[in-house]
Amino acid sequence: MNFTIEKSIEILERTPAVLEAMLKNVSAEWTEKSEGGETWSAFDVLGHLVHGEKTDWIPRMEIILSLAPDKTFEPFDRFAQFEESKGKTLPQLLDEFKKLRKKNIGVLHSKKITSKNLEEKAFHPAFGEVTLAQLLAT
Amino acid sequence: MNFTIEKSIEILERTPAVLEAMLKNVSAEWTEKSEGGETWSAFDVLGHLVHGEKTDWIPRMEIILSLAPDKTFEPFDRFAQFEESKGKTLPQLLDEFKKLRKKNIGVLHSKKITSKNLEEKAFHPAFGEVTLAQLLAT
Repeated sequence: MNFTIEKSIEILERTPAVLEAMLKNVSAEWTEKSEGGETWSAFDVLGHLVHGEKTDWIPRMEIILSLAPDKTFEPFDRFAQFEESKGKTLPQLLDEFKKLRKKNIGVLHSKKITSKNLEEKAFHPAFGEVTLAQLLAT
Repeated sequence: MNFTIEKSIEILERTPAVLEAMLKNVSAEWTEKSEGGETWSAFDVLGHLVHGEKTDWIPRMEIILSLAPDKTFEPFDRFAQFEESKGKTLPQLLDEFKKLRKKNIGVLHSKKITSKNLEEKAFHPAFGEVTLAQLLAT
């Protein structure tokens, strides 16, 4: 399949409804318990997705599209949700994710990304060089 | 988490809505293409789930709860969907899955399964002895 922004948006815009169908009104026992050890609960994963909307793919897209001479991503904090989600409920996180994702798709649309833009690159602290197409496809 | 029928039904009854949120009105390019080789497309997976509603967990539950002297499951045909889904559309499969799952949850309710029933066993052709609790949890 060839990568296009339109086809990516088809999937990106569905995520909030998929998560709601999975998690809304499910017993806390399903959503708050992890599988033990260092595994994450559904509540933890959702907080992680919220944090990603705030700090990951949109700020990284901005870096790739910027004219900065040194295009390097900030490292992503994979454990931020353990602090950030404190005191929040699962319905609050679902709602927060839905609003952030909607806003971010608006930002994505507003960039009017060209196929040339998709080949632009930045430096990922763990994976090395990544293109905008790779960032948006993952 | 302790296994209960009620908590299992919470998840089982959500699957159709989750699949619809993921797949309804998504471009055919997303749903009909596999990742190459022997991988399955979303359409193939959905056909597999439909086949499972017809031939897997409910018939196997009936075998476990039966009084038959030889309680052995029929082998499950993991490739049945390649024939069965022929000529069907993705929305048809979504609808078929939703109706079958609803009917099957009705059957599950009707059995009024006790905690003693959950320990009853049958013989799985690949995994050996399985309890009803194990069957319903997977």
